[in-house]
Amino acid sequence: MTAHIQPNKDHACLIVHGPDQPGLVAAVTGLITRNQGNIVTLDQYSDNPAGGAFFQRVVFHRADLSAALPEIQADLDATLSPYGVEWTLTDQSIPKRMAILASTSDHCLLELLWRHRRGELPVTIPMVISNHTNTAEDVRTFGIPFFHVPSAGPDKSEAEAKILELLAGNVDFVVLARYMQIISEDFLQKVAVPVINIHHSFLPAFIGAAPYRKAKERGVKLIGATSHYVTEDLDEGPIIEQDVARVDHSMTASDLQARGAYVERAVLSRAVQWHAEDRVIRHGNQTIVF
Amino acid sequence: MTAHIQPNKDHACLIVHGPDQPGLVAAVTGLITRNQGNIVTLDQYSDNPAGGAFFQRVVFHRADLSAALPEIQADLDATLSPYGVEWTLTDQSIPKRMAILASTSDHCLLELLWRHRRGELPVTIPMVISNHTNTAEDVRTFGIPFFHVPSAGPDKSEAEAKILELLAGNVDFVVLARYMQIISEDFLQKVAVPVINIHHSFLPAFIGAAPYRKAKERGVKLIGATSHYVTEDLDEGPIIEQDVARVDHSMTASDLQARGAYVERAVLSRAVQWHAEDRVIRHGNQTIVF
Amino acid sequence: MTAHIQPNKDHACLIVHGPDQPGLVAAVTGLITRNQGNIVTLDQYSDNPAGGAFFQRVVFHRADLSAALPEIQADLDATLSPYGVEWTLTDQSIPKRMAILASTSDHCLLELLWRHRRGELPVTIPMVISNHTNTAEDVRTFGIPFFHVPSAGPDKSEAEAKILELLAGNVDFVVLARYMQIISEDFLQKVAVPVINIHHSFLPAFIGAAPYRKAKERGVKLIGATSHYVTEDLDEGPIIEQDVARVDHSMTASDLQARGAYVERAVLSRAVQWHAEDRVIRHGNQTIVF
Amino acid sequence: MTAHIQPNKDHACLIVHGPDQPGLVAAVTGLITRNQGNIVTLDQYSDNPAGGAFFQRVVFHRADLSAALPEIQADLDATLSPYGVEWTLTDQSIPKRMAILASTSDHCLLELLWRHRRGELPVTIPMVISNHTNTAEDVRTFGIPFFHVPSAGPDKSEAEAKILELLAGNVDFVVLARYMQIISEDFLQKVAVPVINIHHSFLPAFIGAAPYRKAKERGVKLIGATSHYVTEDLDEGPIIEQDVARVDHSMTASDLQARGAYVERAVLSRAVQWHAEDRVIRHGNQTIVF
Repeated sequence: MTAHIQPNKDHACLIVHGPDQPGLVAAVTGLITRNQGNIVTLDQYSDNPAGGAFFQRVVFHRADLSAALPEIQADLDATLSPYGVEWTLTDQSIPKRMAILASTSDHCLLELLWRHRRGELPVTIPMVISNHTNTAEDVRTFGIPFFHVPSAGPDKSEAEAKILELLAGNVDFVVLARYMQIISEDFLQKVAVPVINIHHSFLPAFIGAAPYRKAKERGVKLIGATSHYVTEDLDEGPIIEQDVARVDHSMTASDLQARGAYVERAVLSRAVQWHAEDRVIRHGNQTIVF
Repeated sequence: MTAHIQPNKDHACLIVHGPDQPGLVAAVTGLITRNQGNIVTLDQYSDNPAGGAFFQRVVFHRADLSAALPEIQADLDATLSPYGVEWTLTDQSIPKRMAILASTSDHCLLELLWRHRRGELPVTIPMVISNHTNTAEDVRTFGIPFFHVPSAGPDKSEAEAKILELLAGNVDFVVLARYMQIISEDFLQKVAVPVINIHHSFLPAFIGAAPYRKAKERGVKLIGATSHYVTEDLDEGPIIEQDVARVDHSMTASDLQARGAYVERAVLSRAVQWHAEDRVIRHGNQTIVF
Repeated sequence: MTAHIQPNKDHACLIVHGPDQPGLVAAVTGLITRNQGNIVTLDQYSDNPAGGAFFQRVVFHRADLSAALPEIQADLDATLSPYGVEWTLTDQSIPKRMAILASTSDHCLLELLWRHRRGELPVTIPMVISNHTNTAEDVRTFGIPFFHVPSAGPDKSEAEAKILELLAGNVDFVVLARYMQIISEDFLQKVAVPVINIHHSFLPAFIGAAPYRKAKERGVKLIGATSHYVTEDLDEGPIIEQDVARVDHSMTASDLQARGAYVERAVLSRAVQWHAEDRVIRHGNQTIVF
Repeated sequence: MTAHIQPNKDHACLIVHGPDQPGLVAAVTGLITRNQGNIVTLDQYSDNPAGGAFFQRVVFHRADLSAALPEIQADLDATLSPYGVEWTLTDQSIPKRMAILASTSDHCLLELLWRHRRGELPVTIPMVISNHTNTAEDVRTFGIPFFHVPSAGPDKSEAEAKILELLAGNVDFVVLARYMQIISEDFLQKVAVPVINIHHSFLPAFIGAAPYRKAKERGVKLIGATSHYVTEDLDEGPIIEQDVARVDHSMTASDLQARGAYVERAVLSRAVQWHAEDRVIRHGNQTIVF
């Protein structure tokens, strides 16, 4: 049942990102071949074939990958520096470490924990942090540590400091699974890893608070959810994934919220999976999703 | 193929709309029964069972309907006036008269003409008016009169006056099928029939001009279209129908526009059909769609 | 969050089902009014206005419902017997009792338990029965009794007897949440309550075993799931709900199964909710879903 | 509006198909680079990284493509023959020639003609052939030749012979746009180009005739359409694309047919576009769609 998320032994993921140039694809694939790699999947995109930005993701198999990595990295440095592009090479057998921040709502949190247990998310989950305690038992039933960091009062700096202390050095990215606290710029800078959020509307519609109430008032016929990277501009970060569900006049704002929860958990799960699989490349305020 | 849009001989549609009260449904259905009507479909909705607004749509069959209409209307007056509700009774064998206003884009216009020829829209189309001439031959091939009313220059009042002259007394509602001119408040008041528009975004996102360019810049993963009644507030009228299509990073703003055209024509066609079938009830800035 | 599934105090659901006749709707709504009921929702359908079958579902509010029920039932008997229709009247404040039968897969089972805890399924769950033990702890964490009834060997009669003993008198309907055992005709007759199944294909395609493998071999571009009432004809019972998900050539049969699990849990959940809310009427081998 | 289907001047599409081997991707991309090609898009797939079948589609830009083609072809022969793979190289500025066969239904036929006029299908349409005459005027309004080849009586060989005569040498593929005649094996062999069909069900469900009636009888909640390559086995050829639409109990078989028409025209249009863009590779009874 978990077949398509294998431990990925001896699989590497190479991301190349920079100015598009003739010969770049051949240079990359030639490099992989001469390093005894066998390409498994390859995606690429150029936002303008005449001098635009180039994006490539290659997954390749290489026997004894971990031993060969330094040599491949040296070759990449030598081969790609003339092109002026950036690259990252990841050993896919090493799962990313993901922390989840949550509040009282459990739908996004439990979905991530369940998909992880099912073997569908290539991550480890070193901790769940919540400003409430209602989900503690559920989280621990999944064998995941739970930390309660209350966040009452207008000054959030103490709570943020505690969270940063828990995260420091322990995580590769953070997921806000309906964490109902505004994240400060200071926190974002200090955490220094990508932070993924789920917003309960089809951004840019209904930005800010209470989107389901606003959606009811505007009389929309579809509601949506948006997963995006968090930046200092609230609800303005690069969008990773979105989806919608049909609603009608008979539904109250509470009904929209209940229906929307199913969209939220699906959208966030896909965004998290794609990020964990190195499928998402940020480019300005947009994303390339391979 | 056109089976579900019959001439609807001897079918009436009754819309009741007003404050919710116990016994109202029984009063209406009892009235239909004692007037020899047989209920075919019945929909109702109350936005708050404790004293909210009540909406009902009943289609019933009555042999010799046209002869019986005055009597039924008198009974409705007598029966429903104590409840303080509004009602309209429509003979469904009489199709509504729909004018279409268009510009250069043909996708919404041709879709409406083709669905009409196919027997799926219970309307007659007395005219198509465009501020361009490129669609004239297509329109006339469908056997529909085409009028060219140019709209150059900043002053639109002359063009609007000509359009009003063509429409006056000839139409029951107007459809803006990607008509790329702003409608004035004055026009709306004078035309005095419902005006339905298709907006090329998932409102309220990307309100105003150039929504596909804005959608590309924001990096959304779905694009949409919205059909709504036109009010004096641009893009703010009651929404009748919306839908979306998935897009990705590889698509240009032009690609979004091309993909979006298919959403636009489908959304507008559904909205027009529902309006023509008396399924849409306006309520403040929202719609009830039965 | 659980707003739209209220305890439904003093709400009754009336189902009427039989030969269509003029005046039937008025008779029903008049009866409700004279019994001090206030109609909350009303749906009806006739499969042929000229002498077909008629189906109606009315939810109404009546202060002090439980005291008034005998009187309303007597009135229904008296009023509807001339029409030769069947009716059932249900007090919506009394949730149906639902047993779940499962095997090793947890996706449908946990989804039902979670939606129930969330307040979205108007049922009680007196027990989960499985022929495996792997889900026991999860089930009990939700506070639901778990019974293990092994089903090894070709003769299932002993296992079925044990299950019947557990169910007898305790449940109003049974859900097979990916229960991987064939149910015997004998069991169906003895259990004497509706049994709902989820089949992991878009029926009638890929009937029988291993549908995802068959879907892969046929090269379909969508996979689906179907929830239906169980009858003595395997995979042939009345369909309650279906849905699909897009797949492509790159996915293995295991990938289809993993993707399909999300369709299965959604489809089964909707079918269960609609059944629990008395929205589904069986008619021959089909269903009316209001 | 037609931006994403450019004349594709100096763009070539290379399809490679055969046993997967290490170094194949590098060999192909290296070849393109040394022939001054710049890769625009590249897709690849292997159905089993350990010795399965390999599929690749590369679109590249090469200044002065037509002059360079013989040289590139020679290089492909020399470079790829050691790998034992098949390849085809297509000049994308030369549109494929598509004939359409139709009967009385116009929805698929007109959609293809309209998308073609809009610039969204990279094909020329040398002719439409129908066994009826009702669409002749519409077809000719689009500037496309129309030929009437009646097909009455049990013996279809004369009609097929006439159609083959019209097609011979003039077309690169044939589309059956709801052509309601069974195609003989003899015809398929003689026509010797791909034939694409649209079947009005979600295959393999409701194979054969009258699928909407069968769908109504089975009480399905979704109907579908399937576009596939025609083979000698009726309704069994490789599937290119499928989609579905939601239906409910209130719809008659005629209603399903009317609703289904919109799915059919969308599914067939996508299949035709993908085939015309060389995105579909047949592999046994399946397709790879890039």
